[in-house]
Amino acid sequence: MSQVPGTIKKLINDPVDVVDEFLEAFVSAHGDIVSMKVPRVVGRAHRGRRKVGLTIGGGSGHEPAMVGYVGVGLADTAAAGNIFAAPSPDIIADSIRLANQGMGVVLAYGNYMGDILNCRLAIQSVAAEDIEVRSVFVSDDVASAPKEDRDKRRGIAGDIIVFKVAGAAAERGLLLDEVERLAKKASAQTRSIGVALSSPELPGASVPTFESPPGVMEVGLGVHEEPGISREPLGSANSVGRLMAERILADGDYPSGSQVSVLVNGLGATPPLEQYLIYRAVREFLAERGISVARSYVGEFITSLQMAGLSVTITLLDEELLGLLNDPAQSVRFVE
Amino acid sequence: MSQVPGTIKKLINDPVDVVDEFLEAFVSAHGDIVSMKVPRVVGRAHRGRRKVGLTIGGGSGHEPAMVGYVGVGLADTAAAGNIFAAPSPDIIADSIRLANQGMGVVLAYGNYMGDILNCRLAIQSVAAEDIEVRSVFVSDDVASAPKEDRDKRRGIAGDIIVFKVAGAAAERGLLLDEVERLAKKASAQTRSIGVALSSPELPGASVPTFESPPGVMEVGLGVHEEPGISREPLGSANSVGRLMAERILADGDYPSGSQVSVLVNGLGATPPLEQYLIYRAVREFLAERGISVARSYVGEFITSLQMAGLSVTITLLDEELLGLLNDPAQSVRFVE
Repeated sequence: MSQVPGTIKKLINDPVDVVDEFLEAFVSAHGDIVSMKVPRVVGRAHRGRRKVGLTIGGGSGHEPAMVGYVGVGLADTAAAGNIFAAPSPDIIADSIRLANQGMGVVLAYGNYMGDILNCRLAIQSVAAEDIEVRSVFVSDDVASAPKEDRDKRRGIAGDIIVFKVAGAAAERGLLLDEVERLAKKASAQTRSIGVALSSPELPGASVPTFESPPGVMEVGLGVHEEPGISREPLGSANSVGRLMAERILADGDYPSGSQVSVLVNGLGATPPLEQYLIYRAVREFLAERGISVARSYVGEFITSLQMAGLSVTITLLDEELLGLLNDPAQSVRFVE
Repeated sequence: MSQVPGTIKKLINDPVDVVDEFLEAFVSAHGDIVSMKVPRVVGRAHRGRRKVGLTIGGGSGHEPAMVGYVGVGLADTAAAGNIFAAPSPDIIADSIRLANQGMGVVLAYGNYMGDILNCRLAIQSVAAEDIEVRSVFVSDDVASAPKEDRDKRRGIAGDIIVFKVAGAAAERGLLLDEVERLAKKASAQTRSIGVALSSPELPGASVPTFESPPGVMEVGLGVHEEPGISREPLGSANSVGRLMAERILADGDYPSGSQVSVLVNGLGATPPLEQYLIYRAVREFLAERGISVARSYVGEFITSLQMAGLSVTITLLDEELLGLLNDPAQSVRFVE
């Protein structure tokens, strides 16, 4: 299947303005929940009682991430980079300052080199300002490195679970050490894998980034077009769902009788119908192993423009994590 | 641009099972909000105090519609047809019975011949059961018939506004006449128009239903591949958003100083980035005419499988309608 250059149809204006125009529209549409604090930093419209801050961020092109997770019980601020690019250190530093209420700030990002470097620079630049920052780099993608190298793994939709847990912990009024501990615990218990059926198409590009031929799926493909671990025949929803669940369970210890949350994340062009069919296959696979699903999330949480495909995220829960997932939240994407 | 047969990649099992497997997964994922009442009828997991019933429904392939709108402040039951096909009269009759608590039922559907016929048959079949049913067929799509023939117009994303208003009215404990009046008022004040950039691809099909060449958009295309009113050059988000808002405003009376809700509905493969850019253009166009946006909704509310494109829905609000839109709601798709 060959792509004709120039066939990528997008509803945008100048490609260089996409991110700023999006953010402007986002805060104007949801002024009851969010506001623009400085350019590229979206924060809560209303500040509540004093608490540990939570700041998140990352590249754009993943909407509703990250700005969709700013709100009560979730993040205080989100920093937005260009499409598929980390926010600049200055923007991250501003988002830390704006999240700070004097009780410290947890910074939670996906584990990518660009994000890590810019976050470090940002933390250095606020060091003189007496803001204590604890970093959590989410590394849930089991396809991106072997389990011995967990700290080399990418963060994909597992981010959302970590944001929810950390946001709830901060909202409860817990202190910085405790919010950091819970965010890291959620991250450690969370594993994901994705499959892609098509390539994302970047604003301003004339062709997709890669070709995904008929009848195959790219297993383990990242949300920024990073290559997958393998190209495999595209099977039924049941076989694909089971394959994904199997690879996640093979990576950790999931005893019979344990309980988990399952998050199925559409990457852009894959309809809810298909997302739920994968959810069903995963749930069935878990049930056969005596694992029960205590929380379910199905939808688009962190996309890759209009890429077709989805990821599955499984988090091993104890009462502490489940309680935090069940806490109320009120952001544009996530209302509980 | 030619499509190679067999290139449509989907994560499904047997195409004939797609709808039932989806519904099974949906109620298992969201058991706190919904349950399966009889095959193809999803209802609220918990019944509250006695009230007028609201039942909705339609073809599948539009997820999160319709089952995503079952819950507190919204519908009591939703009936699901096959992909792009009206539910059978039997299923609709069951959904009416299950929504009934002895105070009458409002049935709200998009205005399509198949749905109208099957709803009529369903209403006849419950006639002997002493259930008073009032029908509201939403006809918001200005592209589908001239305004003199409003009752020939299709229902597209305007459905959602009607469901929200009717659901809130019923939840307030209003009587049947009043819930019907408010649903019809919301419908009368609601106008939409859509643009498509690609064709939906049906489960089991080997090629898309139509070709949409580079550089053009189909204006007024329906959510079931019904033809658009025109094929026009694909412009910038600003020009497309303004064009859509202009055609809606030309169809009714929107005086300066009035207030509206704006709903931008992604049809499947169009990313939130682009949806918000259209929202921004619409909002700007309205502001120039002295019209303020009191409520905003941007996302996927009623899709057409993985079709690229979106629709804009504008509802002229008074305090009564705005109050009902602002009422709480708790369904899988819609939490307020």
